[in-house]
Amino acid sequence: MKKIAILIESLFNEEELIAPYHRLREDYEVVLVGTEADTEYRSKEGFTKKSDVASRDISADDFAGVVIPGGFSPDYMRKSKDSVKFVKDIYESGKPVAAICHAGWMLAESLDLNGVKMTSTSTIRKDMENAGANWVDEEVVVDKNLVTSRSPKDIPAFMKEFIKLVG
Amino acid sequence: MKKIAILIESLFNEEELIAPYHRLREDYEVVLVGTEADTEYRSKEGFTKKSDVASRDISADDFAGVVIPGGFSPDYMRKSKDSVKFVKDIYESGKPVAAICHAGWMLAESLDLNGVKMTSTSTIRKDMENAGANWVDEEVVVDKNLVTSRSPKDIPAFMKEFIKLVG
Repeated sequence: MKKIAILIESLFNEEELIAPYHRLREDYEVVLVGTEADTEYRSKEGFTKKSDVASRDISADDFAGVVIPGGFSPDYMRKSKDSVKFVKDIYESGKPVAAICHAGWMLAESLDLNGVKMTSTSTIRKDMENAGANWVDEEVVVDKNLVTSRSPKDIPAFMKEFIKLVG
Repeated sequence: MKKIAILIESLFNEEELIAPYHRLREDYEVVLVGTEADTEYRSKEGFTKKSDVASRDISADDFAGVVIPGGFSPDYMRKSKDSVKFVKDIYESGKPVAAICHAGWMLAESLDLNGVKMTSTSTIRKDMENAGANWVDEEVVVDKNLVTSRSPKDIPAFMKEFIKLVG
């Protein structure tokens, strides 16, 4: 069974973490990857979920793709060199990276977004454009192996495109 | 597009509401049915989600199935005669009813569980047995058009069986 990583950190958006987590478990082994292992992270509203492993202890070679939920958590994720390297390694090996809402911050930190077509929550549009991205306002955008969406209401389309790429 | 109802009330379990909500939106029109319409209900941890319609204003004829999340919310749902009638009507028309965790309380209120094979969170096992159910400890149980599971970790299996029945 293919293994998918979902990144977790403090102040995650709970819909964007919970819905992909259970959806992907229908077809894949899902691993919650934190900055630290076995740590309770709290969502914006106080729901907690525990990481399985730390990003420093895993290799992109063992995963078929990564999902990055939004909320304010991407601002914590980007402080971890290991999490940034993990996302970069997945992307550069041609495997799918899915980022929703504020997860664009983690993409700006980890990837070369120059000329890449993508979307995100509208508040970080300027950050994405400053990173060189070709930002559009669409439910879901697929550019090569990058899948992006704007907000929780886009989750069904976001999951469909990611699953299509992972296969 | 087939229409699926998800029941919502105060103190819902957020994983059991959020994950089915976004999963089912991949293939169906999903309607959040509250005791009241257009009302913000809070999960156990404080996450809020608004109902679309009130159970008194809808007919089971217009829906292809119903999902009942757990948490303590089924104890509120069962106070609404209209919500109870809605679940009973869906069930008696042979369309799928899916209930997870504490949603067994709503089943005991709405349906004749005598001899029905089912599961639930273990704390309400006695209530289910007192209602006549043949209670088993399994990830997911399908008995005719009733799908039951125990807890959030069962959500992927629960969704697969429900979607198979809805078609």
